[in-house]
Order: sequence, then C-alpha cells, then structure tokens
Amino acid sequence: MSSSMERKEKPKIDLGPKVASYPMPVTIIGANVNGKANFLVAAWFMAAGISPPKVAVALNKTHHTNRGIKENKTFSVCIPSEDLITAADYCGLVSGVKADKSGVFDVFYGKLETAPMISECPVNMECKLERVVDNGGHEIFVGEIVSTMTEEKYLTDRAIDLKKVKPFMLSLNDRLYYALGDSKAKAWSAGNNFKP
Amino acid sequence: MSSSMERKEKPKIDLGPKVASYPMPVTIIGANVNGKANFLVAAWFMAAGISPPKVAVALNKTHHTNRGIKENKTFSVCIPSEDLITAADYCGLVSGVKADKSGVFDVFYGKLETAPMISECPVNMECKLERVVDNGGHEIFVGEIVSTMTEEKYLTDRAIDLKKVKPFMLSLNDRLYYALGDSKAKAWSAGNNFKP
Repeated sequence: MSSSMERKEKPKIDLGPKVASYPMPVTIIGANVNGKANFLVAAWFMAAGISPPKVAVALNKTHHTNRGIKENKTFSVCIPSEDLITAADYCGLVSGVKADKSGVFDVFYGKLETAPMISECPVNMECKLERVVDNGGHEIFVGEIVSTMTEEKYLTDRAIDLKKVKPFMLSLNDRLYYALGDSKAKAWSAGNNFKP
Repeated sequence: MSSSMERKEKPKIDLGPKVASYPMPVTIIGANVNGKANFLVAAWFMAAGISPPKVAVALNKTHHTNRGIKENKTFSVCIPSEDLITAADYCGLVSGVKADKSGVFDVFYGKLETAPMISECPVNMECKLERVVDNGGHEIFVGEIVSTMTEEKYLTDRAIDLKKVKPFMLSLNDRLYYALGDSKAKAWSAGNNFKP
C-alpha cells in the first residue's frame, strides 16, 4: 500500500467531536398528542430491522411528539417529496406545544388508528412502538412497521421508485436541503468485479 | 380541508409491513477484528445526539464487524464519495470472515487507536461505543463521536460541503445507489413564511 505517500497528499484535519454532514433523510414523524395529530420533521432516522421490519428515530427529549408516541405506543414515518419542503420545514420550526399542526396536512389513519399519516406524502410507514432507548438529550424510538402506504404512481415494477417519490435530504452543518440526484449503480452488484 | 376529494384522487395502497425505500446514507463502518481492520458497508445509520455528538448504526447480528466493535468498544463511520461505490459495494458483498478487507483502503487510526478510518473517504467519524441495543436480528450500536476527520478541500466556510464530498445513498427496494442532487432550500428557514 502506498500509505505514506497518500497521507502526505491528503492531510486530514480534525473538526473535533461533531456530527458531520451526511445526507440525512428528511422524514415527518406523526403522533397523536392529546388525541390530535401532531407532526415533527426529523432527519435522524434509519431502518433497524427486516424481519420484522423496523425503524428507529432519535428525537430530542423536549419534543411534544415524544409524549404522544409514548401515550399511544404508535407513530408514523412519512416521507415528504421536494414539493413539501416548506411545509416540512415549518413542522420543524414550530412546536406542537404552541401551534396546532393537525391542519397542515390532509391526515389519514391506518390499522393502528392512532398513528397519523399524511395523504400528501408519497410514502408513509405506520409503526407500533417497540422500545424507547434513553440516550441522554435524545430518545431513540424503535418501531415495528405494520403498514407501508403509498400510491401506484410512485412504483416501478412494484417497488417504490425514489425518482418518482422525490425525497430530500438535510445537510446538517450548512443547514441545506438537497434533492436526490441520478442513480449511479446497482447495489449488491457494483462491487462484484472489484479487486482489492 | 378538502380531505375527501383528495383521498379519492390519491388512493393509498398498503405494501404491507416493509422497510420502504428512502435515501439511506451509505457509510462504511470500520472496526478492528482480531487486531485487523475490517470494513462493512452500512446504510442503516443516523445521528443520535448533539451534546455529546452521537451516532447509531443497526447491523445484522451475523456480521463479523459486530464482534470487533464489542471487543474494542470503538468503531468508525466513514462517508465514501461516489468514486468509491464499487469498493464500498464490495465491502457489503464479501464477509470479513472469508476475506481480509484490511487492504481495500488506505487505513489510518486516530486517538482511540482501534477505530480504523479510511484515507480515501472525505469524512470519517471516530466513535467510542456507548451502548449496544439488542434489536432482534439486528444490533443497534450507539457511539459517541470523538473526532471528525476531513480535509480542507471538502469544506466551504469551515463546514463540510456535501457537494464536495459527493456521498451516495441506497434505495433499498430497487437496490440502487443514488448520487446527491442540487441544494433546494435553507433548512430552519424555508418554512418561515409557511401558512398552514
């Protein structure tokens, strides 16, 4: 390995203990709080299981939404498209304690009955709370997905097609929302002929 | 609200309990296993704390990398750029049990000494293991970030600039890697004038 030479060409600098920018998927987390739909924009989100399918989201403990998730033991993960950027950003700027966000979107419910989903969002995952991990300033909510709601127009060959969904991502450090670019390669395939 | 009309225009279908495609940020998780650097591609990743900064990653229990993280109580999160797609995909296709992946990248270590990082990656976060959450088929590793290594050329106004980093995302259902698109709006700002 040409380690020493490459190192000299690429001197690393340490920005310190910091959450670095990476493309954080912007989601809207829905929960009923005091019987009313409330929505919070959240980008600290990931899949966390396949069988059964699960998701995890880290939410600051101060959020109104957290109470609702614990009360009902249900929540939703709604994937907004680019044309919902301003509405989604609004849900991150304004707390449900101060503003009634139940009218921002057209709300619908699924089989869990207490996880509010958003008609305007191309994809909605309805989740049953599995556990809450106390993680200091944040709580990690792990949920089992019970329904994945979408529309025919967002599918290609029966799979959700992100070029049709048009999701957007957050860059944390410079506070920018980014669109999705072009597809570049096939996963679990592109590396087949790679020679280390 | 025009709920009933909108509903008719946008009939929802339920794909069943399923992790829906969303832009999953592709990372390479580094850990020493038996004293040797090992790397695994992982897209079930999120930030999980700001003070102190934390990350969380969900890894299938069968992975070789998990053992190393538990052994050393350290790991790294490396953000590859588009030009590392084939190498990253290779790290997801081939298990560290069968192949020695220590030579795939130019490896360097930081202050934790046992969290291997990747010179070729524009951004590397060095993490101290905080907790492991047993989550069925997957384990969620929560780590505290101790260093964020990058290079001057990836910064704009001292912040990591994703247009320079060129990260890529995974669409799970159709198994595609996507590039980052254009910036669309300012976060914590775009919604300022939104009227619900």
